[in-house]
Parts: sequence; structure tokens; C-alpha cells
Amino acid sequence: MPDSPDNAIRFVHENNPRFLAELSNFLKIPSISTDPDHQPDMLRAAEWLTENMRQVGLENIQIFKTKKHPIVFGEILNAGSQAPTILVYGHYDVQPAEPLDLWKTEPFSPAQIGDCLYARGASDMKGQIIATLKAVEAVLATSKLPVNIKFFFEGEEEIGSPSLDEFMENHKEMLSCDFVLNPDAGMVAAEIPTIVYALRGLAYFELRVFGPEHDLHSGIFGGVVHNPAQVLCDLISAMHDEHGRVMLPGFYDNVRDLSTEERLELSRLPIDEKYYQIKTGVSEIWGEDTYSPAERVGARPTLEVNGMLSGFTGKGSKTVIPSWAMAKISTRLVPDQNPDEVNQQLRSFLQTHAPKTVHWDLISFHGGPASISDRNLPATQALMNTLEKVWGSKPVFKREGGSIPVVASVKRILGVESVLSGFGLPDDNAHGPNEKLELVTWKRGIDALTYFIFNIFGNL
Amino acid sequence: MPDSPDNAIRFVHENNPRFLAELSNFLKIPSISTDPDHQPDMLRAAEWLTENMRQVGLENIQIFKTKKHPIVFGEILNAGSQAPTILVYGHYDVQPAEPLDLWKTEPFSPAQIGDCLYARGASDMKGQIIATLKAVEAVLATSKLPVNIKFFFEGEEEIGSPSLDEFMENHKEMLSCDFVLNPDAGMVAAEIPTIVYALRGLAYFELRVFGPEHDLHSGIFGGVVHNPAQVLCDLISAMHDEHGRVMLPGFYDNVRDLSTEERLELSRLPIDEKYYQIKTGVSEIWGEDTYSPAERVGARPTLEVNGMLSGFTGKGSKTVIPSWAMAKISTRLVPDQNPDEVNQQLRSFLQTHAPKTVHWDLISFHGGPASISDRNLPATQALMNTLEKVWGSKPVFKREGGSIPVVASVKRILGVESVLSGFGLPDDNAHGPNEKLELVTWKRGIDALTYFIFNIFGNL
Repeated sequence: MPDSPDNAIRFVHENNPRFLAELSNFLKIPSISTDPDHQPDMLRAAEWLTENMRQVGLENIQIFKTKKHPIVFGEILNAGSQAPTILVYGHYDVQPAEPLDLWKTEPFSPAQIGDCLYARGASDMKGQIIATLKAVEAVLATSKLPVNIKFFFEGEEEIGSPSLDEFMENHKEMLSCDFVLNPDAGMVAAEIPTIVYALRGLAYFELRVFGPEHDLHSGIFGGVVHNPAQVLCDLISAMHDEHGRVMLPGFYDNVRDLSTEERLELSRLPIDEKYYQIKTGVSEIWGEDTYSPAERVGARPTLEVNGMLSGFTGKGSKTVIPSWAMAKISTRLVPDQNPDEVNQQLRSFLQTHAPKTVHWDLISFHGGPASISDRNLPATQALMNTLEKVWGSKPVFKREGGSIPVVASVKRILGVESVLSGFGLPDDNAHGPNEKLELVTWKRGIDALTYFIFNIFGNL
Repeated sequence: MPDSPDNAIRFVHENNPRFLAELSNFLKIPSISTDPDHQPDMLRAAEWLTENMRQVGLENIQIFKTKKHPIVFGEILNAGSQAPTILVYGHYDVQPAEPLDLWKTEPFSPAQIGDCLYARGASDMKGQIIATLKAVEAVLATSKLPVNIKFFFEGEEEIGSPSLDEFMENHKEMLSCDFVLNPDAGMVAAEIPTIVYALRGLAYFELRVFGPEHDLHSGIFGGVVHNPAQVLCDLISAMHDEHGRVMLPGFYDNVRDLSTEERLELSRLPIDEKYYQIKTGVSEIWGEDTYSPAERVGARPTLEVNGMLSGFTGKGSKTVIPSWAMAKISTRLVPDQNPDEVNQQLRSFLQTHAPKTVHWDLISFHGGPASISDRNLPATQALMNTLEKVWGSKPVFKREGGSIPVVASVKRILGVESVLSGFGLPDDNAHGPNEKLELVTWKRGIDALTYFIFNIFGNL
């Protein structure tokens, strides 16, 4: 019979200040995977992780090179072959910090203000990585680990995990497990423990529209040259109808309908118009009006402009017809849409809608399908019990609007389901300026993960 | 009886290399009026001008302070009160040089490649200023000047001449003249001498659309928050119909129709679809299909997106819903539209079309009405004769698509017409990268201006 978790929890509480200091050191490394200038920082972050994993007490720690950023692995398999094996997934890369002028603190100089720690990656997901590692450290330091645990960290999640699938295909034995614990999901609110059972997929594009060979004087040429910025606006505008529906041809053909039971379950989430108004500061929310806000974010696909650039954008005025215009456009996908199909749908849309007065080019970035898992999995039920113990209330089930493509990959390649935890909050500004981690929730999260390691054997 | 122009023309030809060297020095000063960082360069450019005017032999040279950039004045009134007085207008400020990476040479290090001089301001309009000053220098150095000449240079043309009208109101006596010679117009082609008799006006705006308080994670919030970049695209897209007509309410109400005679005159211009395809590199031209290209550029109003910015525009991908989106939007106006009315029309359009899910702000930059003058003015006829002498072919009359608001101002304040010359070419990239001046045409222009000074008395 395994030990009681009490000693481990005590260890967690006593060592919380050190855990926070370690997280701060980790956050100081600007591991921005999308920016080639930060390649050396990616390696530093991977090496920092192996150092910390050694301190936790993991074994067989390795850094695997990939074409872009290294994968870090470590394990502890002392529980024996009868005990279950958990594969913990995480990513140590972060989003770019721009726009820098909107940060109130330096993005890579973690700053604690009140109960929050501000830094790029604090919530997404270095805070979650440290929470999981420290929970295992606490158990290892105080009792016999009742399960086998493998840790598996990539550095390419924010750029679509280009090396991940091939790596998993080539290391199936090393990564074999009973289920994946993925702490890259989040909570509905600090007081509402949340279990995410579905994630949206992603297909990301850059659309470039080319007009004249160079910027033109808008007086000399205005009236005879089709303005590529205007064409881009026409195209983007035509991508939605007035009801907020995406107009790419066939976009909804494979979208799985919500069952009445699932709509009822989702209606229990404390996520309504007011919730989103408060979280975002908008005066009115928007979207497909035949679906609730929780359904729109979790179970309906969307198309977003993530960025746009054309012509003169400095101070003052400049009277040019721009030579080109660019937009970053991404779609969030739901079961059973496919990123490659959406790529074709967008190309087909552009072929139909783009006028002959311009040229266009569509660059496909990373993508991944959506995923959905059974709410009755034993590991999911164990997580439910754990969260209820720490928070004192029954968790809600949620479909997450974000994308964690690895969930679909581990299902396909390793044949296992993922249990999604994570203690980030919706207003953490995960990809925006002033990203933060709420520390009270984070500490509860470490407690919960510690209990979970015991609970998976049903002995909570 | 005045002297013959032959000696002056010889002087021009002998001194051409020096004139070019002086122009190069002038072009090295980055007199970018819209950028506050270049305030000292504006003063340097004004001082450089006074120095050159002194060398030309002008008198009463003065620099007048304004709220922004100084006005430079100089004159030579030795021809007597019976002789006509010409007021030469020019502007020594230039457009910003961005995008810098598209320049093949440094914008403020003039470089001669073949018969062209590359630099910001070479064509618009430091080259034209030097041409006019040097024509006067040539006449002064070789014979008695048969006319009185005043020079009047502002440093705020590219930002809408905010100080100009008030200055003219306060210096009517100093600026009094029989007509204005304004060399800020251009030619249709190097071999086709051109007289511009109409100019479009301008109204320039910055439209800002505000959505959520900060950039949001597009997974967590995609589906419930109206994307401000998408809203901006919807608004811009609705500003034109499918026939290229501007949809601001009342936009065409005051547009003066073209007479049959004028349409016939304009049809003689060698400006057709092919012309614009070659000048701009587009495969098809665009615009109001019931008007010819020359009519669309000269006699029809337009609305252009001059720049656009929102969200993430760096390398790679970032999955945000931007907090705001911005577009620089300008309209080119024709007689009898009014910039203030267009401002109201755009505001009214936005009030009607902007959804309640966002906030917006419209900043009005400078503007000016269009202008049109009588093709039978004596000074215009004199210019016609001069151009025909130098080029050996009859000039064409053109409505220019660009904006020279000072033409309307001198008519209103000083009560005089402008004669528009200038030796820039449509492919000089006046406001774009790699602005150039074709030197063969420029030298012909100095000859033409020299003859013009004599010809105004009818003694060519």
C-alpha cells in the first residue's frame, strides 16, 4: 500500500518559496520558438529544464535534437510494471512578447505584484511545468512514488510542433504509457476547478496581396490602380456573413453537432455574455447568435485576423497606394474538421473572390485537428476527485477554445488518451502583454497534482 | 528691348554640372516635415536655400518662423513697376523615406545611376526648386531680368501646409504678383511637354477601431469577441461598391461634371490602360468603368487606404485577437467637393456602419480643396510656347491627380492664378522608395524656365 500524501503536501507547502524562485529563473529565459534570433535561448531553456529534472530526482534525462528546438525527456520508473505509467507532456517555448510597449513590467524579468507573477510564459506554460515537476519532487522526497512517471517537454508548441509527431513515431517505446497528463489546459475561474475534455484545432495562414510593383503616389495613380489594402479588406470582409458564420466553402460540412446532453452540460459553465464582457472589456460580445458563448468558444469553429499590415503606418500622413497588404489569418477548428481541408477551402475561397487586378499568395503555417475525449475515463475521474478535494467543489467539464494539437497526436501515435489539467486562468493574457500567473491558484494546483499522483491508484 | 535669351541658355549649359552638385547637396538634408525628429533638418534646409538664393543674386532674403517649419522668401524687383511680377512657389520638405528596405540607394545620399538621380525629394520637388532658381541665376548673370521675380518656399507641403494660408494673409503685399509660377506639377512622359490646369484636393484621415482592452488569445476568446481588424476590413470594404464608386453618403453630390469638350481634350492625352500597366506593373487597371483612365485620375474623386496596421505582423505566427486596428485613409477630391464636407460624410458613414461591438476614433489630418484654372491665361499661353520651343511639339493639357492646395490658396488670398510647370515624370516614385529625377528632362526644364522668363514679355 502506498504512503499517505500528507508528507508530500507538507513538503510542497514548506518549499513553495523555492518553487517560485525556480519558476522565476525559468521565466527569465526568453524561449521564443518562432523567432530565429532566440535559438540560443531555446537551448538554454532545455538545459535549465534538465538541471531541474535532475534535482527533482528523475533518471535517464536526455536532450534530443530536432530540426528546430530540442525535446527534453526524463523518467522515474520505480513503481514497477504493475503500476500505471503517466507521461507528462509540456512545452517550454513561449509566444513572442510584442507589443512590448503595452507591458507594465519587463516580459522576461518576472515581477510579483500582489498575488500574481507577471512574465511571458508564466501561465502558458512554464508555471504549469514547474507545478508538475515540483509535485513529483514532493512525492519522491517524502515517500515511494506509487506510479511510473515520464516527462516529455517540447520547444515548438507555439509554432505548431513541427518535430513532435516524427519524434513520437521514432520513440514509441520510450514514450509508452497508460495515459498522458497534459497540464496545458486552464480553469474557468480561480474558484471553479475545471476539467477540459475537448480542444479546438488550428490552421494558421499568412495571406499576401500584391498590387503595383512599388508604393505609388495616391494622387498620380488613385482611380486606376486597385489598392491591395482595399482588396485585402474586401477578401477578409467576405470571409464572414452578417451572422458571424465563416464563409469558406464547405467550412461547416464536417463540424460535429452538439448533442442535447452536451449542450445541457455546457450550459452549467459559468460562462455567459457578462463573463466575457468583464474578461475582455468589450461592451457587447459577438458571434454566431444561435449558439451560447460557451458553445461558440468550445464547440464552434472560428476564423480570426491575427494581424494586418500594409503601406504607411508611422506618425503623420503619407499619401501612397501601398504595393502590398498582408494579413495573418487563423481558424480554430472543432471535431471533425481537418486543417488540410480548411487550407483547401481558403485557397478555393481566394480563387473565387480575389480580383484579377492583384496577385496573392497564401502561406500555410502549422495546424492541427481538434480533439475530444471521453469524460468517463478512469484518469479523468481520478482528476475530478482530486480537484474536488483541493477546491471543495465539483469540477465543471469544459470544451476549451484553444488548441493543443499534441492531444490528437498522442491518441494517434501512442494510442492513449490525455487528461487535461492546468491552473491558468482566462484573464492570464496567455498570448498578450502582461501575461500573469495567479499564485494562490498555482499553489493549489501543485497540491492537486501531488494528490493526483496518489489518487490514480484510488487511495486518496 | 530686353536681351536675347541665348547667353542665358549658354550659361545654363555650361553650369549644368554645378547645378547638379548643388541639387545633390540640397537632397542630402532629410527635410521630412511630418517627423518631429527631423525638425533641425528642416531648419538646415531652409538655411541652405537662403544661401543658394544669395548666390543666385536675390535680395531681401528672409526666413520666417511659423508654428512648425520656416518659410523662405527672396526677390529681385529690378524690372520696374511696368514689368510683370512672377511669384515662384515651392516646398523644400519631403515625404518620409519608409519603407527603407526597398530603396536600392540611400534616400538621403543622392546617387546618379545612368541618367537618373536617386534620392528622396529629387523629383518632388527639390529638383524643381533648383531648376527654377538656376534659370533665374542664368538670366541675372547674363542679361537684364525682364520681369520682377519673388521666391516663396514653404516647409509644410507634405503635411498639408498648416501655416501657409495664415502667412499669406499676413504678407499679401510682400507676395503680391501677377501670377504664381508653381513648378510642383509633372509631365505625362519625358517627350510630351505637359501643362496642368487642374489639381485634385485631399482629405486625409486615420481611422482607429478599438475592440478588447488588450490582445486576446484567439483560442480562448475566438467566437465571442468581435475582432477589430475584421471590423476595420468590413468598414473599408463597404467604402466602395463593386463599380469602384465611393460609398460615403453624398460623396458625389458636388462633383462637377466633365463637359463634352473637356472629355475630348483629355482623350488626346497618351494615358490609357496600357500606360498605367507599364508605369505600375499591374496586370489590369481598376476604377470607375464609365470614365477613361485620364478622367478617373484627373477629374474623379477617389478614396484610398494608405496604410493599415493591427495585431501581430512579425515573422511566424501568433494567435491573438488584436486589441485594435488602424487604417490611414485619404480621399482625392475634385471641383467642387470640400474637405470638411468629406470629413462629415466619413463620420456619418462610420456612425451608420460601425457595429456596437467596437469603439472607433477618426483623426482628421490636413486637407485642401481641388483647383482648376482657365487654359487661356496669357501666362499659360506663354508657357505653352516655351515648352513647344524646347521640346519641339505642342504641349498637352492635363488634369493632375495629385494635390497642390496652395493653388486654391493663392487664388483665394492673393487673387491670382497659378501656372503649373514642373519636370517630374509619373514613374519618378515621388512618394515611394527609389524616388528619382530624370536628368535629361530636368536640364530641358531649366532651359524652358529660362526661356519662359523672357517669353512672358512676348519676345521669344
